[in-house]
Amino acid sequence: MSVHVDAAGNIRGCYPATRPGMPRLFIGSHLDTVPRAGAFDGVLGVVLAVALVKCLSERRFKFQIEVVGFSEEEGVRFGVPFIGSRALAGTVDDELLNSCDGDGVRVRDAIRAFGLDPSRIGDARVDDDAIGYLEFHIEQGPVLESLDLPLGVVQAIAGQSRIDVVFEGKANHAGTTPMNLRRDALAGAAEWICRVEREAQNTRGLVATVGRLDVQPGAGNVIAGHALASLDVRHADDAIRKQAAASFLAGANEIATRRGLSVSWESRLDQASVAMDASLVESLGQSVQHSGYPVHQMVSGAGHDAMIMAGRMPAAMLFLRSPGGVSHHPDETVRPEDVAAALVAGKEFLEKLEESALS
Amino acid sequence: MSVHVDAAGNIRGCYPATRPGMPRLFIGSHLDTVPRAGAFDGVLGVVLAVALVKCLSERRFKFQIEVVGFSEEEGVRFGVPFIGSRALAGTVDDELLNSCDGDGVRVRDAIRAFGLDPSRIGDARVDDDAIGYLEFHIEQGPVLESLDLPLGVVQAIAGQSRIDVVFEGKANHAGTTPMNLRRDALAGAAEWICRVEREAQNTRGLVATVGRLDVQPGAGNVIAGHALASLDVRHADDAIRKQAAASFLAGANEIATRRGLSVSWESRLDQASVAMDASLVESLGQSVQHSGYPVHQMVSGAGHDAMIMAGRMPAAMLFLRSPGGVSHHPDETVRPEDVAAALVAGKEFLEKLEESALS
Repeated sequence: MSVHVDAAGNIRGCYPATRPGMPRLFIGSHLDTVPRAGAFDGVLGVVLAVALVKCLSERRFKFQIEVVGFSEEEGVRFGVPFIGSRALAGTVDDELLNSCDGDGVRVRDAIRAFGLDPSRIGDARVDDDAIGYLEFHIEQGPVLESLDLPLGVVQAIAGQSRIDVVFEGKANHAGTTPMNLRRDALAGAAEWICRVEREAQNTRGLVATVGRLDVQPGAGNVIAGHALASLDVRHADDAIRKQAAASFLAGANEIATRRGLSVSWESRLDQASVAMDASLVESLGQSVQHSGYPVHQMVSGAGHDAMIMAGRMPAAMLFLRSPGGVSHHPDETVRPEDVAAALVAGKEFLEKLEESALS
Repeated sequence: MSVHVDAAGNIRGCYPATRPGMPRLFIGSHLDTVPRAGAFDGVLGVVLAVALVKCLSERRFKFQIEVVGFSEEEGVRFGVPFIGSRALAGTVDDELLNSCDGDGVRVRDAIRAFGLDPSRIGDARVDDDAIGYLEFHIEQGPVLESLDLPLGVVQAIAGQSRIDVVFEGKANHAGTTPMNLRRDALAGAAEWICRVEREAQNTRGLVATVGRLDVQPGAGNVIAGHALASLDVRHADDAIRKQAAASFLAGANEIATRRGLSVSWESRLDQASVAMDASLVESLGQSVQHSGYPVHQMVSGAGHDAMIMAGRMPAAMLFLRSPGGVSHHPDETVRPEDVAAALVAGKEFLEKLEESALS
């Protein structure tokens, strides 16, 4: 492969086709991860792409293969994720370039300090010769392990709603306020958290999470007057997600009214789901099957570079089982035999692409 | 009255009896309150005692009256409450004297800096001539207001259990972990909070509060792995309180087991209830009634100096209605007509004591 660092700091390695001027298949993932994380999130997908090219033993296809290691996916430093893949998709804008890190350094300053010209970031945009994007990634969840499967074919990346919900009651003395004269914001929030969980359990494919709860004043001998709860709702079907979020908020209203509390909310994120390309999904499934592994199609609950690349070209993702469902943690790992399975399926995928009308 | 500051910094004013050598009735409350508080917690009881003596117009009884303004009740500075009343009760020990404030200043240092000798704090102890203690105090709760009553006769000060309860689950990705594969510590805590509330509502006279809930890691997109909840349980009957606390902990166990969580707890406080003196309670109730007000006996959910004084002599407390149930807040107030009612009832109480066998 001929390797270069592009205008957004992505590492790109080009493996030529049988002859010049042929279209291009991108295979990649991200090089960064979060602080105190493991060794496989993102970078396994880059290494797998390199290994896949290596095990071709210089065999050429009717398409070029471009391996990409994206420079910034997590959004840890600037609070904005997917900088590398957005550069390839051509959706980096001034707002992104002007985003600052904790020290007030802008994205454009960091690019310049790295030795690149931020005004030329558009050069990283892919040409019109792209035929698709394939990403290998650890699942970062427990589903494949629970099904005893090495691989999962991603059919869609779930849409997300993030909403902050605030219950307001009345802070009061825990000893002197009888139960029937309380307006306990935490008790109201607790009832709502149980309701969110119950409704999500009863809706196929839905996940809903309250992961943060800030209670004020937060003293053991004071009834809570204020409780801020985060709500995170995800589903592959945006209509189901929006319906669920609306139902959760209606539930909050009902609980607050009954308890003499007030409730308010603020939407923090409303991100549509992104479908993977049907033809590539089909082809990837067949590749898994021909490699001797059961095919399991699944929804990704987390965002990935494939979500961004899908805006520019047909995209597909192959998940590898995450032992213990652990990710973003030093215990994050993969099984060697699952990596081997992904490699075999990836090679099969390239063969299928070679046979298909696409190439 | 002849006034002096005692060895613990309490202000004490003595109003003589008809002749020397007669026993002594104490009437008082505390001079301190909490930061950012109101103008009536504690000091209203001292001012009412002074006003009561004043409105006697030099009429003497067969008992002395000693008005006490306690120097330290809240425990804000040293983390140890009731220093003033403990000095009168004779229960100040070295542990108390060596307690430090945030700057490392010990109680004994503060007493010395005030110009007193901490080794002589025992001098503040009351003599054996004490016949009782009466305390006027704002209710600091909403009960009297909800009943449209100016005054309440305290029959007991509730015992308290304070317990920290920790639910441990598994922190995980909010997007990639299906509902049925979660071990959500916050959802478990929420279910338990609802259960505590429901059981307390169904137990007459019981108050149970979860006022603090610390959730880890506490991010909107991460399922909570850890939740620490404070539990505060109070009742006038220690057996009922202990039974309730045990039931709450059994409930936590049941919920944790069902959800695949672990739960542990640590007792922070187990303080027995303190009954007011039955004879003084009866007499105070009659005084309220003879003054033209309905008699309402009630349990104090908060601790008071009367709780300490009850260890040394018969004690009684009269609560004044707290508008809005507000205390420890700048909006804390009292109605002038309720103060007048307390004064009339207090005078009646002195007359009853004069008539009774006690004097």
